[in-house]
Amino acid sequence: MRIDLDKPHEECGVFGVAAGKGNTDDASYLTFLGLFALQHRGQESCGIATNNNREIACHKHLGLLMDVFDDATLSRLSGNAAIGHVRYSTTGDSVVENAQPIAVSHLKGHLAIAHNGNIVNAQALRREIEEDGGIFHSTSDSEIIAHSIVRDRTDKFTKRSIQEAIKETMHRIQGAYSLLAMSPSKMIAARDPNGFRPLSIGMLRGNYIFASETCAIDAVGGEFLRDVEPGEIVTVENGDLTSLDSGLARRPSLCSFEFIYFARPDSVIGGISVESARQEMGKALYKESHVDADIVVAVPDSGLSAAAGYAQASGLPNVSGLMKNRYMGRTFIQPSQGQRERDVRLKLNPVASNVKGKRIILIDDSIVRGTTSKHIVSALRNAGATEVHLRISAPPFLYPCYFGTDVPNRDRLIAAGHAGENNPNETVIAEALGANSLAYLSHSTLSRILLEDMHKKDPCCPSCPTCTACFSGNYPIELPPEFNAENRFEEPIPIRTITGK
Amino acid sequence: MRIDLDKPHEECGVFGVAAGKGNTDDASYLTFLGLFALQHRGQESCGIATNNNREIACHKHLGLLMDVFDDATLSRLSGNAAIGHVRYSTTGDSVVENAQPIAVSHLKGHLAIAHNGNIVNAQALRREIEEDGGIFHSTSDSEIIAHSIVRDRTDKFTKRSIQEAIKETMHRIQGAYSLLAMSPSKMIAARDPNGFRPLSIGMLRGNYIFASETCAIDAVGGEFLRDVEPGEIVTVENGDLTSLDSGLARRPSLCSFEFIYFARPDSVIGGISVESARQEMGKALYKESHVDADIVVAVPDSGLSAAAGYAQASGLPNVSGLMKNRYMGRTFIQPSQGQRERDVRLKLNPVASNVKGKRIILIDDSIVRGTTSKHIVSALRNAGATEVHLRISAPPFLYPCYFGTDVPNRDRLIAAGHAGENNPNETVIAEALGANSLAYLSHSTLSRILLEDMHKKDPCCPSCPTCTACFSGNYPIELPPEFNAENRFEEPIPIRTITGK
Amino acid sequence: MRIDLDKPHEECGVFGVAAGKGNTDDASYLTFLGLFALQHRGQESCGIATNNNREIACHKHLGLLMDVFDDATLSRLSGNAAIGHVRYSTTGDSVVENAQPIAVSHLKGHLAIAHNGNIVNAQALRREIEEDGGIFHSTSDSEIIAHSIVRDRTDKFTKRSIQEAIKETMHRIQGAYSLLAMSPSKMIAARDPNGFRPLSIGMLRGNYIFASETCAIDAVGGEFLRDVEPGEIVTVENGDLTSLDSGLARRPSLCSFEFIYFARPDSVIGGISVESARQEMGKALYKESHVDADIVVAVPDSGLSAAAGYAQASGLPNVSGLMKNRYMGRTFIQPSQGQRERDVRLKLNPVASNVKGKRIILIDDSIVRGTTSKHIVSALRNAGATEVHLRISAPPFLYPCYFGTDVPNRDRLIAAGHAGENNPNETVIAEALGANSLAYLSHSTLSRILLEDMHKKDPCCPSCPTCTACFSGNYPIELPPEFNAENRFEEPIPIRTITGK
Amino acid sequence: MRIDLDKPHEECGVFGVAAGKGNTDDASYLTFLGLFALQHRGQESCGIATNNNREIACHKHLGLLMDVFDDATLSRLSGNAAIGHVRYSTTGDSVVENAQPIAVSHLKGHLAIAHNGNIVNAQALRREIEEDGGIFHSTSDSEIIAHSIVRDRTDKFTKRSIQEAIKETMHRIQGAYSLLAMSPSKMIAARDPNGFRPLSIGMLRGNYIFASETCAIDAVGGEFLRDVEPGEIVTVENGDLTSLDSGLARRPSLCSFEFIYFARPDSVIGGISVESARQEMGKALYKESHVDADIVVAVPDSGLSAAAGYAQASGLPNVSGLMKNRYMGRTFIQPSQGQRERDVRLKLNPVASNVKGKRIILIDDSIVRGTTSKHIVSALRNAGATEVHLRISAPPFLYPCYFGTDVPNRDRLIAAGHAGENNPNETVIAEALGANSLAYLSHSTLSRILLEDMHKKDPCCPSCPTCTACFSGNYPIELPPEFNAENRFEEPIPIRTITGK
Repeated sequence: MRIDLDKPHEECGVFGVAAGKGNTDDASYLTFLGLFALQHRGQESCGIATNNNREIACHKHLGLLMDVFDDATLSRLSGNAAIGHVRYSTTGDSVVENAQPIAVSHLKGHLAIAHNGNIVNAQALRREIEEDGGIFHSTSDSEIIAHSIVRDRTDKFTKRSIQEAIKETMHRIQGAYSLLAMSPSKMIAARDPNGFRPLSIGMLRGNYIFASETCAIDAVGGEFLRDVEPGEIVTVENGDLTSLDSGLARRPSLCSFEFIYFARPDSVIGGISVESARQEMGKALYKESHVDADIVVAVPDSGLSAAAGYAQASGLPNVSGLMKNRYMGRTFIQPSQGQRERDVRLKLNPVASNVKGKRIILIDDSIVRGTTSKHIVSALRNAGATEVHLRISAPPFLYPCYFGTDVPNRDRLIAAGHAGENNPNETVIAEALGANSLAYLSHSTLSRILLEDMHKKDPCCPSCPTCTACFSGNYPIELPPEFNAENRFEEPIPIRTITGK
Repeated sequence: MRIDLDKPHEECGVFGVAAGKGNTDDASYLTFLGLFALQHRGQESCGIATNNNREIACHKHLGLLMDVFDDATLSRLSGNAAIGHVRYSTTGDSVVENAQPIAVSHLKGHLAIAHNGNIVNAQALRREIEEDGGIFHSTSDSEIIAHSIVRDRTDKFTKRSIQEAIKETMHRIQGAYSLLAMSPSKMIAARDPNGFRPLSIGMLRGNYIFASETCAIDAVGGEFLRDVEPGEIVTVENGDLTSLDSGLARRPSLCSFEFIYFARPDSVIGGISVESARQEMGKALYKESHVDADIVVAVPDSGLSAAAGYAQASGLPNVSGLMKNRYMGRTFIQPSQGQRERDVRLKLNPVASNVKGKRIILIDDSIVRGTTSKHIVSALRNAGATEVHLRISAPPFLYPCYFGTDVPNRDRLIAAGHAGENNPNETVIAEALGANSLAYLSHSTLSRILLEDMHKKDPCCPSCPTCTACFSGNYPIELPPEFNAENRFEEPIPIRTITGK
Repeated sequence: MRIDLDKPHEECGVFGVAAGKGNTDDASYLTFLGLFALQHRGQESCGIATNNNREIACHKHLGLLMDVFDDATLSRLSGNAAIGHVRYSTTGDSVVENAQPIAVSHLKGHLAIAHNGNIVNAQALRREIEEDGGIFHSTSDSEIIAHSIVRDRTDKFTKRSIQEAIKETMHRIQGAYSLLAMSPSKMIAARDPNGFRPLSIGMLRGNYIFASETCAIDAVGGEFLRDVEPGEIVTVENGDLTSLDSGLARRPSLCSFEFIYFARPDSVIGGISVESARQEMGKALYKESHVDADIVVAVPDSGLSAAAGYAQASGLPNVSGLMKNRYMGRTFIQPSQGQRERDVRLKLNPVASNVKGKRIILIDDSIVRGTTSKHIVSALRNAGATEVHLRISAPPFLYPCYFGTDVPNRDRLIAAGHAGENNPNETVIAEALGANSLAYLSHSTLSRILLEDMHKKDPCCPSCPTCTACFSGNYPIELPPEFNAENRFEEPIPIRTITGK
Repeated sequence: MRIDLDKPHEECGVFGVAAGKGNTDDASYLTFLGLFALQHRGQESCGIATNNNREIACHKHLGLLMDVFDDATLSRLSGNAAIGHVRYSTTGDSVVENAQPIAVSHLKGHLAIAHNGNIVNAQALRREIEEDGGIFHSTSDSEIIAHSIVRDRTDKFTKRSIQEAIKETMHRIQGAYSLLAMSPSKMIAARDPNGFRPLSIGMLRGNYIFASETCAIDAVGGEFLRDVEPGEIVTVENGDLTSLDSGLARRPSLCSFEFIYFARPDSVIGGISVESARQEMGKALYKESHVDADIVVAVPDSGLSAAAGYAQASGLPNVSGLMKNRYMGRTFIQPSQGQRERDVRLKLNPVASNVKGKRIILIDDSIVRGTTSKHIVSALRNAGATEVHLRISAPPFLYPCYFGTDVPNRDRLIAAGHAGENNPNETVIAEALGANSLAYLSHSTLSRILLEDMHKKDPCCPSCPTCTACFSGNYPIELPPEFNAENRFEEPIPIRTITGK
């Protein structure tokens, strides 16, 4: 049973290890550790594929890493290179067939791929492959990418290498992807021309590491080298790393939601510390919408960093006002209808001694359905808070995301439901939630922080052009025609895999 | 842990139900029952796919039917048509990826297929598909057949129906196959032109049933209609059954091993009762090689029918001389080296009161490694038997089978290891086993029984031309060039699917 | 899910190994093998307790041996002595708490016990112990016996040894029991004064073996020494076996149902071969109630031995007329009401070629609810049998058994439901079952066979006085007053142990 | 596999619901929720027992609540009263037999009990019961308590009620216990005369709730009524709550470690907010041992509250300097020797952007083996921290605890290993850990905070006399003679329950 986290659901994470000049005898164990540090990016399924220079072995399943892997499984995943994946589905169904990595056999041997992102022209490509007689076992983008790469790889006339086949495929697929591919002799990491999703390179004892976030490189004790560039194809072969340019025009537009919510605070993305960026958002929130209050309280864990920034800017004490139950697993007793409220209570409990008699600035990074926020405000009041002012460290989500962030539809329940002039009416929402006031961070401020402020504050911090389409509706790439309802391909009907006893 | 049955391992079994004019709301349950009656044909893995006129759902796993399916799983496999499969691998690896049915999605929708048999030109076909950019998830013939059918089905110019696509594919694949295919609207049953493997049609309450053996039709309470003919393609659509001729020259050559060992005695194959055929073999064995003795004892269960025939012909009492433990599951405590003998003892124990002081004709249908036979002879002597004459109701296996019978390599350990002039030296083997004498049924007699004797005895019994290549080396079809070692395609390297905790 | 075997349910089996002068390093493995040969005596739960001269380790669970034990579990059950148990509940509930052996800790150390049988004054003893402040974790007789033995063992004044404590307890408990007890230094085997249940002693490589049936001694490769005598207490200590007389008057009355149904044909009980006894019953059945017919057909497996005897006596061919599905596990898809008939069909299928046009003598050892018998008769007719004469190799069960045989209530549905003058009206029942005629073996003949005929036939065969109370109502011991309804203790309410996910 | 939390392991937690005047149809679900809020008090095993006024049902197993219970299990645990338990073993073995609640059957019916604490004279009591013929199935204190209560309850002369039997037993057992007992008609909550362990009473919709901590009352939406008093016996019967005085002299001495580490910050124990108390400890730490620094960093989660207090007192920013992986389950890949360091890294990662160039006050509540502390200090330095001053919000543990806190032996590895005059040499330890300085909170300050300061700060806060024996060696009760080595009873040898496949 899944617990409803009532949050914008995370995406996927990828991790890979490729032996350098020496051998890595613990590729699967390192990949387990790396994925474990990326577990926040996906809790639905996970998998690891290894290769021993001749064949690829793979294990994947629905569940958390701790549940899917144990010592015995990891030790049978022998080999000196490995790629792994943690998944939360944004497309495709919650079935094990859609778990990654996907490992296939083709004319030239084995191939495993894992990716993070969303291919916007996936259905058109699938249709094309199907029209040519192709068959599919799943509804995931990965299988489409695998088909495409293999066709480019086995083309008799072009005789492309695997990295060239990936380059060719990159000219065919549109959207967001940070991709790891592994053949028995090579590992290839590629990132879409917009660099929507992060992908970093690290080193550990002479071996190359690829990871969605730097915290995973830290977790295995490696050192951060650099990011894979938007549109770049990096190949590790015989212990050497080489770079190939996809030739696709680069328009960097990193997903701003990585900074707001997805990534772990201790990660550095695009040269910017996620923790620092969130603190800046908290500080900006103070400047934009402060009201008189006694304490700052974060909604744990999503509001913690922004609350620290807000407290620092305001000089107000940053107080632990909500206790979070750390044993909430991925599985939970399915709540009967009347028990949902009870479950929120189970997850978060006010620390009465800290909030009694206080006027509170309550910081979170988003409001989704509003159920949780409403409960929190009410619980804080019951515990003695005299005022609760809700501050959200991101703008309201008003437009759908086509690049892998599963936020829009659900968020609009509350934000778009109270919108005026494309902006939610904060007063109306505050009333609905029982809060004394509500303010979102403005879209322009968010963009400015990542593009300018971080750099001004610390010249080592690069300017980071981000995608903020979910706030503005300005998409960094033209969407394919099928995104208009009348042109839309029907979603493929998934073969239902029945999970037995 | 697998128990070593020390027998020629069985093959696969298929079963299907297609709604007739009315609806079948229990297709998955009927298929479970039918497969259960076919469990003797394969204990490694099993699966059932159903369709609800729109999508296909599938559940398959390693294990016996009782372990893989329960009420909940069956009820989630809703739909009014279903195909199922029990498998013992003769090609491919013991991984769940190779379990059948295989269900795929293609341009025209979903397709599930299950088959019993062995495609002799499978590797050449796989190579061809791979050269055209195809990718494979498993090493099973089924996936190759699926690729082929889908390519024929989605060909833009021929616009073939699914049954026409199967016909086209039948012109491409060579070997033994009894195939069931299911699309959301049709069920197709096809049998190779030699009819190596059995496939029967039954009716139950207006619904069509397809089964590897008639005992499965009995099991669901259905009535036997007829066999699918060699080279025939039968389609059920909208409740109507139609027949299509593949146009391939028919050379009926039913596998004689179905009569000797594979099939259940209560099945009727090619119009011949398996029980009767085995009794005839026992009678013929008496005529060919009788010696003076007191009682006939069968090795349960494989020797039971032939022993009845021998006893009837000889007039000797047919006595229960060996007790078989009925709780031998598929799993068993892995014997340490010194414990193997002990485990045979566990499986079979002499009934001392029946064999003490007796000269025994001991009947079995084969000798494989000889370990079991040697133990049985010794155990009977220890229980007081004064003579043990071993009689085998089939000729010795001397040639490899390429059509799905996993006998040759292991058997030749004992038979070919003591061969003289292509025939095993019975005296030498008898000595090795500790028996007073040994005799196999002659090859010519076996062929005559199925081709002439059964018919003479009962004019209703048809002549049944069988394949006896494993005894004679005369293969009913020309083998593709790759069966010469120098032309052989390398077996594809399977992607190892690691089974986790 | 349990399959309804529709048979008198079997009882328990016990097995033990005690090191002789040398050590037995594989006591748990030997016990596993021995229990495996006794699996027919109980399929609900099983367990093994071992000791390493200091502490007792135990593993038990609901399920078959193959499911409950594997290599790892057995190897952790180290020690040089072991006792084991397979259980079908005749008293107590189907919960793991009631599985045996029961292992407890007391003043003098650890004690494990396992028994086969039924204590008729169990509730009175339990009440007595409870009145003294005792607490119970289960509702099984074993826990009551354990309490009683421990109290006798720890009595400060008598300072009894464990075998003396068992002797004392035997003076207190009434009913049927074959008991194995194990302390860290001793193994004790005891049998009630009537010897209701079998218990044999064997030797293997200098070690002592105790087993409910001799087939288990055979299974481990041991040699039969002798039976534990009714009322005898046998102790193995320091590798030596000594005997202690309980001093209770011995009135041998072995359960006749062991010969009719419970025991395996290859076992020897009370000096009599079970197979031979059953054949004699078949022969006697011929003499008592033969009608003209063509063939003898056994209901497998329960009717096999008697059918052989009937065929031998009548000179008619003994034909395999019913095929039994060997994959019927302990678990099965729960039949919906309308599917029960279908399930019987699944279990047994006629061999049409053998029965077509034949007048059949159909042999079984009992009729319980009649459902199965009715189906079999009907199925044989549908397969072409012209007449079906049902012959039962035992008298009808008319009286309840209080000594561990779970037959009476269910059987009387058919036999007592058509009784006239304390005897079922065979004609009426035959009609109800659709058979042409029906005959049971007479009670007097059954008794005579075991008491006289076997001995006459073979002077080595002892006279074996048996309990036939279920046929005659003459109980060999006086039943305690609580067996009259008005004196009956209420059954203890079991603590329900909920089995979780 | 267990993850080594490298922390003083928590103890047990108990929770109970007894129907008030109305019925509670969801007692098991409420108990699940309550236990879930107490999961931090024990992760080894858990269990729930319910009663339906007639019989008790129970489910317990090794594992976390989320793993042991699901909807189906909870719904089968029907009844209108329930008690539950989460356990970390401080005595007894990690086997399911030692899981609680323990449910037994006795003369008067069923009884279930669950307790938190440690009985110091347990072995003497067990011996006494054994000498009277008692048998034990486990080595847990609970079974001893159950025996004692049942003996007092079933005594023919005193005819005590269950609560009177508990009172009698309380006069016999010494040590720490917060006990819940449930019969089919009553629920009884009792607390030892010292009130070592917390136990609170709450109300929910007219039903009574008992919980180890108030956060569990909050979790089910109940209201806190009052604590069970030291030495008090509270009975709920027919919806009414009555109180019985054990008559034992009350010497309140609540375990100070509840305030330091065990309890959740949002709980209120003995009238004192755990969060507030921890903040006071942090403030006091500042006053006692401040050094010049830039930021305060907590070791999450144990140092969070004290760090907040320290930051507030010092005026330094309280910064998130360490990121904790929230997916560390109870199970983890067993580290090979060289991988232990790697695993600490996996659990905690520095937030470089927050600590770079900073002088850090690092706050934790204890140092156990020192491994983790050493790693953290080193990791912070690697991330750019210029100074790391470690401050511990509790005194060093120098004396063993006999009342249920499993701290001493392991802690002394570091603290006692560097002790001078019964106090650890802070300078030496700081060097060993690589810290610039180290300071513990003084024992006198800790005692003063709970006895005086909290009250001075807020007059509503009561004075709370605590047990600080682990810091001072002054035990609040005289220990029984067997705590001197020469008088010590041998620990009972546990019957090893082998956990199978």
